[in-house]
Amino acid sequence: GAILVINCGSSSVKFSLIKPLSGETLLSGLAECLHTPDAKIIVKLNGEKQTYKLPNPFNHQTALSVLVEQLQQLDLVKDITAIGHRVVHGGEQYSQPTLITEDVEQAIKQLAKLAPLHNPANLIGIKACQQAFNDLPQVAVFDTAFHQSMPEKAYIYGLPYSLYKAHGIRRYGFHGTSHYFVAKQAAEQLNKPLDQCNLISAHLGNGCSVTVIKNGESVDTSMGMTPGEGVIMGTRCGDLDTGIIFHLVENLGYSIADVDKLVNKESGLLGVSGLSNDGRTLENAMLEDNHAQATLALTIFCYRIAKTIASYSASLTQLDGLIFTGGIGENSNWVRTEIVKQLALLNFSLDEEKNQATRFGASGNIATKDSRACWVIATNEEWVIAEQSAQLLTNLVK
Amino acid sequence: GAILVINCGSSSVKFSLIKPLSGETLLSGLAECLHTPDAKIIVKLNGEKQTYKLPNPFNHQTALSVLVEQLQQLDLVKDITAIGHRVVHGGEQYSQPTLITEDVEQAIKQLAKLAPLHNPANLIGIKACQQAFNDLPQVAVFDTAFHQSMPEKAYIYGLPYSLYKAHGIRRYGFHGTSHYFVAKQAAEQLNKPLDQCNLISAHLGNGCSVTVIKNGESVDTSMGMTPGEGVIMGTRCGDLDTGIIFHLVENLGYSIADVDKLVNKESGLLGVSGLSNDGRTLENAMLEDNHAQATLALTIFCYRIAKTIASYSASLTQLDGLIFTGGIGENSNWVRTEIVKQLALLNFSLDEEKNQATRFGASGNIATKDSRACWVIATNEEWVIAEQSAQLLTNLVK
Ligand SMILES: Nc1ncnc2c1ncn2[C@@H]1O[C@H](COP(=O)(O)OP(=O)(O)O)[C@@H](O)[C@H]1O
Ligand SMILES: Nc1ncnc2c1ncn2[C@@H]1O[C@H](COP(=O)(O)OP(=O)(O)O)[C@@H](O)[C@H]1O
Repeated sequence: GAILVINCGSSSVKFSLIKPLSGETLLSGLAECLHTPDAKIIVKLNGEKQTYKLPNPFNHQTALSVLVEQLQQLDLVKDITAIGHRVVHGGEQYSQPTLITEDVEQAIKQLAKLAPLHNPANLIGIKACQQAFNDLPQVAVFDTAFHQSMPEKAYIYGLPYSLYKAHGIRRYGFHGTSHYFVAKQAAEQLNKPLDQCNLISAHLGNGCSVTVIKNGESVDTSMGMTPGEGVIMGTRCGDLDTGIIFHLVENLGYSIADVDKLVNKESGLLGVSGLSNDGRTLENAMLEDNHAQATLALTIFCYRIAKTIASYSASLTQLDGLIFTGGIGENSNWVRTEIVKQLALLNFSLDEEKNQATRFGASGNIATKDSRACWVIATNEEWVIAEQSAQLLTNLVK
Repeated sequence: GAILVINCGSSSVKFSLIKPLSGETLLSGLAECLHTPDAKIIVKLNGEKQTYKLPNPFNHQTALSVLVEQLQQLDLVKDITAIGHRVVHGGEQYSQPTLITEDVEQAIKQLAKLAPLHNPANLIGIKACQQAFNDLPQVAVFDTAFHQSMPEKAYIYGLPYSLYKAHGIRRYGFHGTSHYFVAKQAAEQLNKPLDQCNLISAHLGNGCSVTVIKNGESVDTSMGMTPGEGVIMGTRCGDLDTGIIFHLVENLGYSIADVDKLVNKESGLLGVSGLSNDGRTLENAMLEDNHAQATLALTIFCYRIAKTIASYSASLTQLDGLIFTGGIGENSNWVRTEIVKQLALLNFSLDEEKNQATRFGASGNIATKDSRACWVIATNEEWVIAEQSAQLLTNLVK
């Protein structure tokens, strides 16, 4: 059988049909520009892309109907054993993949308070799939689940404890599926069971987070109650003196909504560079045009990631290695060099030849012989979602 | 000659009369409860304390008049060559001690936007001293000055760069005088000039900050634009997901003023423990009553300090040692143990006998032989202020 993996955003749906054991992708693609007349769906099959305009109404439901038609024409529907949904926020309830029932839907809705941008979109995807595939089991795989193993010292903020008890204000962490996937891959490289591995993984994409993994479990991570905390990202500022927010509101005329927009949409690499939120664009501007603000943005980006990686040495007494993943982590040898050269006191150093060779999907250890291991690993959250969904169903049947 | 060192808060004035070369304190004390009928002044002389009620008006001016009377009776006024003021925020203008002129006063007033709780009180002290000692030179020594050596990657936030350019929104750092003092002391222990020393210093008092010092200069520090950023402190939460602030305001009915009060006055050790902001009280509650929340508060406190110390390894390629100072850093062997055991990957380990012996004003290296150095050093900001004030005057005369 195969699992249809769905990652639903407010105006897009990403999908992949995956064999859970091998990770083989039978078909993938995305629907985008939903809720606009430009709505379209792109289907990738055997390395070829087909684009179809979506008919009115330009919504998730329509996108999924068109997908079902395609799957039927290709005679793939009969292979699908379940739908696996990426759900962003699982709160404290969900540390495992979960069969979606009405209660679970209610819980995901409740948790939208903590993830107002993500959980409602994930629910739309769930509803639409229930209509499109009404007899198939649907599984939720939560971005927060892997981090539920964190100890209190890592997840409690320095706020009145009552805010945690009454309102769930704590660190949850995100990108859990990705950190878990790359940790498992690193364990294979180390030839050890995951639960004997101590790792730090840096997922550097549009969103960025760093996680420290002790005996195979997440024990701290840089994103917090929301995905806005931690290192700087494409358009998010990451850690910020709270006093700056008060200053913006009290002295500079910002509303809270203005500040929210500022720190989430106009900051990060985009804000510092004044040029782009895109790692590649900035790297070109720096290397080819000597663009000072692009250089500064990337320099701050790397320094703060290096500090975060180094800070996690406080959670470990042993460290097997460091993992780079995500679009920037997998592709930018410049970023990796800049980060690792600031980790010399933790005994990391890169083999520049290997570093330059390991890009565009290549994986491997790019460290020197004297260094702790440092791997580039292409992430594959879809495969984890497929695998965990299939596993859950097998366990339910038993 | 001697320097009268003044540290003026909104309802208090601390003062010390100090010989700048030796650091000898001829007289010290504080006026407190100003603006209330309980206003009093406590004068310490030769180890003895005298308390005097202040007459109406119960203000800084009155406190300083009473101090001047005392100094006259003791025939100490003629020894005073200058007044050295601790001024909290010097912005980017002031990286050095500065003779206070009308322009400088204006600048300190301007900078009150960035330090609304501190700079206005410091100005009151300056004005009152001008009246009380109208023929003596007055010097400002800024808490931010030592950190002006930070590189851009450490002081620029992940915000639009224009906010820095237009409004000075950047990391400034505080406790600079203390970090500088203990770094100088550590350099003596190392028998090296300060500009060849690479150190991390943790000032742990009511306010807490960690600073990394490269070749004698501050290159990063945990407090930010305001003293609210960084590790958790007595009543401040330190680093916080900005998303929590939006959640408090948008979903939980807080005003911005409520949030300001929450994170600055009701959080930190006090907030997590629900018991006290005082390190000693919490340690007693933990060790004697097994108080769970006190234990959690201190555990988080130590973990976050350890993470911050470890993070600063990213700024260094060599590290000579770690310094503990401030009320908690100088006195709590428990806190030091808990922090240093999380720094094993950076090759720190404590000699527990030395750790326990080095308290209540004792100084020294408490690390094992195999460890990097780890000093307890009693801070003395007043001495630095006296020394730098005297030095400035000498240079002006030349
Ligand atoms: N060759 C490259 N060099 C530098 N950055 C790259 C390169 N290729 C992709 N990136 C960057 O990766 C980021 C997107 O990462 P990705 O993991 O795809 O994002 P998402 O978090 O949306 O899944 C973008 O900033 C992109 O510029
Ligand atoms: N023996 C001790 N054990 C633990 N904490 C102590 C001890 N002595 C003092 N402290 C703590 O030091 C803190 C005050 O530090 P101090 O440097 O005097 O403050 P400030 O930042 O106001 O100058 C308080 O939390 C106090 O409880």
